[in-house]
Amino acid sequence: MPNIADNTVRRLSLYLLFLEDFQLQGATTVSSGALAARGGTTSAQVRKDLSFFGSFGKRGLGYSVPQLIRRLREILGLGRRYRVIVVGAGKIGSALAQYRGFNQRGFDIAAIFDNDPAKIGQPWNGLVVSDIADLERRAAEIKPDIAVIVTPGEAAQPLADRLVECGVTAILNFAPVPLQVPDAVAVKAVNLVLELEALSYALASK
Amino acid sequence: MPNIADNTVRRLSLYLLFLEDFQLQGATTVSSGALAARGGTTSAQVRKDLSFFGSFGKRGLGYSVPQLIRRLREILGLGRRYRVIVVGAGKIGSALAQYRGFNQRGFDIAAIFDNDPAKIGQPWNGLVVSDIADLERRAAEIKPDIAVIVTPGEAAQPLADRLVECGVTAILNFAPVPLQVPDAVAVKAVNLVLELEALSYALASK
Repeated sequence: MPNIADNTVRRLSLYLLFLEDFQLQGATTVSSGALAARGGTTSAQVRKDLSFFGSFGKRGLGYSVPQLIRRLREILGLGRRYRVIVVGAGKIGSALAQYRGFNQRGFDIAAIFDNDPAKIGQPWNGLVVSDIADLERRAAEIKPDIAVIVTPGEAAQPLADRLVECGVTAILNFAPVPLQVPDAVAVKAVNLVLELEALSYALASK
Repeated sequence: MPNIADNTVRRLSLYLLFLEDFQLQGATTVSSGALAARGGTTSAQVRKDLSFFGSFGKRGLGYSVPQLIRRLREILGLGRRYRVIVVGAGKIGSALAQYRGFNQRGFDIAAIFDNDPAKIGQPWNGLVVSDIADLERRAAEIKPDIAVIVTPGEAAQPLADRLVECGVTAILNFAPVPLQVPDAVAVKAVNLVLELEALSYALASK
């Protein structure tokens, strides 16, 4: 499979969201123009993005919705399930665990860790909170694909180091610090502080 | 104030996070090198970013931590409080309402809206859920600075249109669709589906 740019992957995800919507509405074919309109891009960009992965559309007929959904899910690695561990038993982790899209995308939370004695051993979204001291032992059993870090900033880098050591190759980081990891490890970050301050900057600079 | 690029604003936010950390640890001065190391960037980039806003540092002495914190907070519009309304009384909105960083950054949630009769009138993080049908009337009273959209994808664009009509000029969008708004409106998006699929793509393409 060709190695494609992050921005292309993001657009493919958006196309998939729209196609699933179209399918719910009973559509069986869709034009590159309709996909482009929903994704805030151009028909040419849609055709270019999809042409990376072979030819799907027929000129004048558009793309087959179920076929394109199947192919995009395959490209995006959604044909299988992923074992996820969450570090930090707080509200954001809970919201994620209860988020339908998480499960629909094949992400199964296999364990939750915290270092707070008041939380360890307590129930959490159908699991029991594990002691972070047991991370290495538990990870050897679970063999997690993905780790979600939902801790304060100062805890995040040492945890990322341990997770990488445990063989985790994909991290979703909610802690408000950039993580340094080897090139082979994929990190995606959701930094609410940065988003909030980008908004306050936008308001203040008017 | 000069109009600065999104990426610069993000780095300024990161510098501020680190400076607050340094301050907690009792540091009174910091070098551009130390800031750079924490932000995953270079000393030259730090000096360039900060030089936009006048000269702070003294060669060989570094930056004054409290002075730089004060100035960055001012640049990022953190010297005041913002009235926020949230649309969608679900888990993610709740996590946000209970998130310390939200309040610390001066964001006060003034109202929460939903269209679900089972939620309207119910307590929600110290507020009562309002009917989305009352959005225009309530917004005229509240004069919100920022709206947070935490709804399913198909509801987001019509809501964004109504919010813009109400005078909202900054939106934080958690719905999994890109929003189309006038240029004068700032939108920041947190799209968990895109982050998750970027990770599954990374795992699948290995």
